[in-house]
Amino acid sequence: MEIKDPRNHFSKENGALSGEKTSKTIRKLKDMKGFYEDEEAFNKMDPETVLYEVEMHAPVKAGTEGGLFFGTSFLNPGKVGEEFFMTKGHFHEIINRAEYYWGLEGEGVLVFMDEDGNASAEKVCPGSLHFVPGKIAHRLVNTGDTKLAVGACWPADAGHQYGPIAESGFGVRIKEKNGTIIAE
Amino acid sequence: MEIKDPRNHFSKENGALSGEKTSKTIRKLKDMKGFYEDEEAFNKMDPETVLYEVEMHAPVKAGTEGGLFFGTSFLNPGKVGEEFFMTKGHFHEIINRAEYYWGLEGEGVLVFMDEDGNASAEKVCPGSLHFVPGKIAHRLVNTGDTKLAVGACWPADAGHQYGPIAESGFGVRIKEKNGTIIAE
Ligand SMILES: [Mn+2]
Ligand SMILES: [Mn+2]
Repeated sequence: MEIKDPRNHFSKENGALSGEKTSKTIRKLKDMKGFYEDEEAFNKMDPETVLYEVEMHAPVKAGTEGGLFFGTSFLNPGKVGEEFFMTKGHFHEIINRAEYYWGLEGEGVLVFMDEDGNASAEKVCPGSLHFVPGKIAHRLVNTGDTKLAVGACWPADAGHQYGPIAESGFGVRIKEKNGTIIAE
Repeated sequence: MEIKDPRNHFSKENGALSGEKTSKTIRKLKDMKGFYEDEEAFNKMDPETVLYEVEMHAPVKAGTEGGLFFGTSFLNPGKVGEEFFMTKGHFHEIINRAEYYWGLEGEGVLVFMDEDGNASAEKVCPGSLHFVPGKIAHRLVNTGDTKLAVGACWPADAGHQYGPIAESGFGVRIKEKNGTIIAE
């Protein structure tokens, strides 16, 4: 019997994904109207600025019970006013679905929020591992000067709920103030 | 609000896991009686020989719907007769649960088998990514001269069925014959 070559690759160094059934989503500044506190700073920036990209391997249909998806989030460095570039953040549609994140390159913060609005934040760095329990919203923030790359694995039936976050945020923002990274 | 340090680490270089809620399982030669073809070679070896170790992060109870587990399998190099050191291999107890594997260090093979006994095999190397669909048994084999380290993420309610494999194997064995790695 033939021993086949692997169908997909996931770079150890930077998390780049390639091979069959992979795709990429690009999020630009214009896709995140209302997410940042400083609207004046937001409006002065180029709406085509790429904030982050997500590469994803989807070997089964979204919604498949027992299936999994795998991906890497790449966040560019930068700020809107004092607030660092971040992902939209979401709860899962099937609310009890968990997720793993692990840091590959760069420096960042993972922000968590429960359904009652209680937030917490954890540093992300190369070699950090983070479990996101079910019922917890999650957002990645790039607090460094270089690209932040974070691996992820999540259930194929988890889905995404962006609405609640777009409306009321995480109750905490990751900013640079006087050269210090803070959550406030 | 404080930005906390990560609770867990997952080495980019070699897959070592550390931090809260991690544990390690060790599989020795004596735990795998009946799995290898060459029983004479098996019986001549030290039964305390460590074949592989699995480091695991289990942040929720086994059986938690929507939860995930994360781990690294470390297979030592070696052979029993012509057959390379391998994991026991298993179906998941909830048979439709999938899993991801990704190669971190060393060279190996991932063997798949469906419920009808149809097997296939894929090379594993640093940077390879492998989706194990539901209803597919899976086994790792170290075909190299160094440790094989493979990352994994799977549903917390997947469970393990070792019985069918212990009885009838994968229908294919990964061996070295005349200096060549073959599946037969
Ligand atoms: Mn998610
Ligand atoms: Mn498994």
